Formats: sequence, C-alpha cells, structure tokens
Amino acid sequence: MVAPVFDVPGIAALMNSVIRSDLALSSIWSCPEVADISDEQLLACVQHKLDFKTKPLGSLGVLEALALKLASVLGSEQPQLQAPQMLVFAADHGLAAKGVSAYPVDVTWQMVENFLAGGAAVSVLSRQNGIALNVVDCGVAKDFAVREQDPEHKQPKADEPRLWRRKVAYGTADSSEGPAMTAEQCAVALRNGAELVKKLPGNALLLGEMGIGNTSAASLLLARLCGEPIEAVTGMGTGLDAQGLQRKLAVLKQVLQRHTAVTEPLAVLAAMGGLEIATMTGAVLQAAAERRLIVVDGFITTAAVLVASRLQPHVLQRCVYAHRSGEPGHTRMLAQLQAQPLLDWQLRLGEGSGAALAWPLLLSACTMLNEMASFESAGVSTKG
Amino acid sequence: MVAPVFDVPGIAALMNSVIRSDLALSSIWSCPEVADISDEQLLACVQHKLDFKTKPLGSLGVLEALALKLASVLGSEQPQLQAPQMLVFAADHGLAAKGVSAYPVDVTWQMVENFLAGGAAVSVLSRQNGIALNVVDCGVAKDFAVREQDPEHKQPKADEPRLWRRKVAYGTADSSEGPAMTAEQCAVALRNGAELVKKLPGNALLLGEMGIGNTSAASLLLARLCGEPIEAVTGMGTGLDAQGLQRKLAVLKQVLQRHTAVTEPLAVLAAMGGLEIATMTGAVLQAAAERRLIVVDGFITTAAVLVASRLQPHVLQRCVYAHRSGEPGHTRMLAQLQAQPLLDWQLRLGEGSGAALAWPLLLSACTMLNEMASFESAGVSTKG
Repeated sequence: MVAPVFDVPGIAALMNSVIRSDLALSSIWSCPEVADISDEQLLACVQHKLDFKTKPLGSLGVLEALALKLASVLGSEQPQLQAPQMLVFAADHGLAAKGVSAYPVDVTWQMVENFLAGGAAVSVLSRQNGIALNVVDCGVAKDFAVREQDPEHKQPKADEPRLWRRKVAYGTADSSEGPAMTAEQCAVALRNGAELVKKLPGNALLLGEMGIGNTSAASLLLARLCGEPIEAVTGMGTGLDAQGLQRKLAVLKQVLQRHTAVTEPLAVLAAMGGLEIATMTGAVLQAAAERRLIVVDGFITTAAVLVASRLQPHVLQRCVYAHRSGEPGHTRMLAQLQAQPLLDWQLRLGEGSGAALAWPLLLSACTMLNEMASFESAGVSTKG
Repeated sequence: MVAPVFDVPGIAALMNSVIRSDLALSSIWSCPEVADISDEQLLACVQHKLDFKTKPLGSLGVLEALALKLASVLGSEQPQLQAPQMLVFAADHGLAAKGVSAYPVDVTWQMVENFLAGGAAVSVLSRQNGIALNVVDCGVAKDFAVREQDPEHKQPKADEPRLWRRKVAYGTADSSEGPAMTAEQCAVALRNGAELVKKLPGNALLLGEMGIGNTSAASLLLARLCGEPIEAVTGMGTGLDAQGLQRKLAVLKQVLQRHTAVTEPLAVLAAMGGLEIATMTGAVLQAAAERRLIVVDGFITTAAVLVASRLQPHVLQRCVYAHRSGEPGHTRMLAQLQAQPLLDWQLRLGEGSGAALAWPLLLSACTMLNEMASFESAGVSTKG
C-alpha cells in the first residue's frame, strides 16, 4: 500500500506504520489476517443437499441463499449457530457540538444505562431471541459506576447484559477542527475490539452501536472511502428536520474540506470516524479472522465493515446484512459492498435492533438445511 | 347482492341462497359476520406509547406499524400472541390432469405424509418457532390411515402435528370441463373451515396449503374476481418451464371461457377454486369473526383471503402478510388488497413456509410494544 500524503499532524507516520505492520507499532495493533474461505466443494455439496430437499428447486429463495452463506462462513454442511453475541459499541463524538444531531450528547450514556437496564429496543429483542447482550464503552463522555454487569469486576448472571470498559477517551475531538482521534487512539480502539472478540464464546457476532452524532461519521467515511457525494449520503439521522439536515450537511462538507488529502482507510477512520466505529472495525477483523458469522445492522455498523473490508477484503465473506436502513446513505453503502439485506423495514434506530430482529431468520436457514427431509427419505415423487 | 347469471348447472340458486343466508341453506353454511374493529381511541393510545419509547419517533419503521396492527386486531394495548396454529389445507385439483403443474398429483398426499412426519419446510419452521402444526385433508385424492396424529381418533402429543379429516371429495372436478365443485361441496368446505377454527386454541392462525395445481386456481380467482388479465397473473408455479407455462396459460383461458358469466365470489370459488381454498376461506371468515390474527402466506392463501374479503370486507383488518411470493400474480393480488408484505424473499413453495418463517417478527412487534422502556421510565433525554 502506498503511503498517501496526510494533513493530520503526526498521524501520517503512525498510520503508515500501522498499515505496514511496522515492528514498533505492532505492539499497539496488528491487523488480523482474514483468509479467503471460498470452498467450491463445500458449496457444491450444500447446493446438492438443498436441491434434493422436499421442495421445488430454488423455491425457498433467499432462505436457500442464506443457508449456503452460513454453511460457507462456518465451514460446515450442517452449520449450527452457537451462543450469539450482540456487541453494542458506544462512544461520543466531538462533532456533535456542531449540532449534527437532533438529540443532546447525554443520550449516549443514558442509552448505555438503558441497554444495561434491559429497556432499549436491542435489549428486549436480544432477550426475546436468546442473544447475549454486550455493551462496550469505547469512548462515552461519562464514567459508569462499577456494577454487577461488569464482567471484569464481578460475575454477572449468564443472561444479563454485560458492560465492557474499553474507553479510549471521553469522546472524539471535533473533526471539523482537526482529527477526531490520534493515530494511537485509533490503534488502541482497533486492538480493543479485536481483543474483546477473543474473549467471547460462540460463532456469531451481531453488531450494534450507540453514539449521538455517529450517522455523520458514517456518512463521512462513505463519502471519502467510496467517493460518494456527501449530499447523497447524508440523512436526517435520528430525526433532524429539513433545516437541521442543511446544517449537518454544511458541517460535513467542512470536515471533508479540513481533511482533503486523507484517503488511506485507517487515516480516514482516525480523522473522521468514531471510537465506537474504530473498536467495531477491530472486532469485525478479528471475528472474520476466526471465521465467525458477522450480522451487520444498519448504516453505522456497515461503515465499520466498509473500513475493515478496505484492510482485509475477505471480511465481506463473513457478513450477513440484517436490513436496509431508512437512512439514505445506507442503500449506497450496501451497493458499494454488493450486499443484499434481509429486511427492508425503514428501521433507523441503530443499536443493533435490526440485527437482533433478523436473528431468527438465520436460525431458520440452518433449521431448513439441517432438518428438512429429502425427496428420497420422505418418499415424495420428484418433478415429472 | 344481485344474483348474477350462472352457467354452472344447479349452482346458481344454491349459491344465491348461500349469499342471501337463505333459511334452507343456512343449515349447510352461514357466513360468519365480521365486524369493523377500527378503534381510534385504542390506536391513538398505542401510538402514544410507541412515540414515548426510548427511540426517535417512527425509527422502528415497519416494526411499529406491525405493533399497531397487532394491538388493533387483538383489541389490546398490550397484545400477546398465544398458541399460534398453523393450518395447512390440502386438496387435489381435477385441472391437474390437464398438465398445469410440473409435479405429479401424488405429491399432494406424499407431502401431507411429509408434513405429519416432520420433514417438510413448514414442519421444521413451525417446530423451530413453537407453532402448532395442523394439516387438514380438505379433498386429497387418497385415504390416509388412522394414526396418532388424528386428534379425533387418538390423543396426539401436544407438540406433534395433527391431521384433521375434512375430506369433501377426492379432489375437485376438472374446471375446464365444468364446475370444480358443486355448490353443496363448496358450502360444506366453507363450513368445515369455520367449524375447525372454533376448535383451535390461541389467538393467531397461520395459513398454509398444499395441492398440486393450486396456483392455477389462485390465478383464476384473481383474474375473475379482480379483472386482472390471466397472462399477467399466471406463473411457473412450482417449476414449469416456458413451454409448460404456455400450456398452463392455454388451459386457464379455457377455464375462464367455460365459466364466462360466473362473477359472484362464491360461485367463482366453486367453479374454479379448490377444496383447500374453500375450506381456508371458511377458516378465514371464522377467525376474523373471532378477532384472531391471520398470518397470510403466499399466492394461494392470499387467494382465500381475497374470496373471504369479497364476502366480508373487514376480514382484511385481521390480516398480516408474511411475504411477497416469487409467483408474479401475488404482487398484483397484494396490490388489490393494498397489502404490505413483511418479507420479499422470492419464496414460492407455499405450505405456510413463509408464514412460519415470519412468525418471530410478529413476536418482536409485541415484545417491543410491551417491554421497551419510555424516555421517562429510563431517564433518557428527549429530542433537543
């Protein structure tokens, strides 16, 4: 990878080192290698199984495609999803001070409390579907009291939400005035995400996030990494009015202007991203390296996958996209990743709510592949 | 309702009597009255609850619309779905002899055995999602042996599939040569469906069907009842090739020609429908009268809802549409009913597989409405 010119003071050398896995930086973070898992023989075998189930060829549409995908990710003709882990990455954004969100910054930490108390959408949907809920403080502008949900201090009950303390800073800096984070902060966040995944059981991660101002960060990443016009990928977020949208757009243009020459993925992440997005990017890379299934939620989680895919393209082989968000940039981002979402429900809440909602559909794909009878075993006649 | 001119011998008087709830016919079948359940006050109350949940206004999109719908159908601010019942209505079609399907007629009874043995798509998906599976022999061209799954002869285990014997005939007659069923057969099937629903626990029915040749019947009902061109609503069914599709289309045109003057809903059902569709129509009417939720699957189950809605328009208030089928006529049929399906997965298997698949999404709508915290209860700040 050729080192671009950076305008962020001090970040250039550090970032180039990260990319090059330079010895000096590898102690902070070295990008997990994500190997190609295409296995033609396995896929042919699963396709054959599907074709001899008691149903017309291809008649279960997307459910069949999903079964093939899960078999491929988990490397098994009989894929079994185990101990699904929802990870809600939370952090604050310096850019929020510029009025890019309809909600006050305090909502970030308040919602973290709500996740842990069990009252948020992602809490109730995870509970319904037997998904373990992990909340990660990646950079919330508030200290959380030590509590039972803290797996590194106490021993929470198995079905309770957990709070993982991975705070890198009390939010990012304002990216319209300088880089959102230093290269070192970015590298620490990436490492935090990767290390956290290593501690988690099971073979499936569901991605979620919380951070007032983070649709702005996602729009900026998409605009810079994919060359999409910022006007086309900036939306109302959680509920801006038309005037608020214009203000947000003006701020985002200012950010892009401030970091004109930044184009290398990690440098873009550090300059305009968020600590929750950086931590999530590390988690995605590690999960993909371990061949876990990654269930992507909406606009912000897809942004982390986009960054990760620019470092290790094969991460995309591990991803399933739960839904197409109501945020307009998401449609363009999904198109960039050639991703087919499962639901088109105009969700725009984030948190991981769409991923938790779609989870039983993934279980159904496994159930269908593993439990349906074949024409032969059921004694049913085939097509005439 | 004005009596149309019928060309089906003997059916005119009988059908008009059914429609008019004529005394002589009411002993065979009287259409359950389906009352209007629009309750502005309840809906306003549920909308208020949704708007004060810890999420931006409307940010859960279709999930919120679904919660409103379930509250409305079940008449409660805290809707609880209980003891869901999958009903797979099975019957054979005389028209199948004309080569309108890619599969031999024997597949109907073989698949009934497969449902009961637990190996079909609807079997495994119902089992996964805790849905009781009821198979109804409405007119399969084969006698089934008495078995444990027969609730009227033995006592099946709670979680086992059940076989309900409601055979009206060994399949319909060939509708290209005369009416598919007599008026009396049609009335008996309607009554069977209604009476069966009365025996079932819970407050939700999921509709499924099995019958080689029944996409033809659904296309015919749609063409005649809604004036859609038969070319636009005839598809490959379970897997015809282009030549087979042309043959099917020629046969369907012949059927429409044979029954040119038949336009009244029940007369159309008798002339060109199927025994499983007629039984299902009765079940839909009864379930709607009892204010149960009706989860509609694909093309054929929607056809039964279409017929029912022509008798009692308020049945549509009770319906949720699981998916848009890959069968082209389904899109037009949904548009006729102004229905918004939950999934767009190119399913074209039938059986109730799409309804079983979508079931957890309905549970999520209830969970969200009943369990999510409000801004006030969670101590989260509202929009600035």
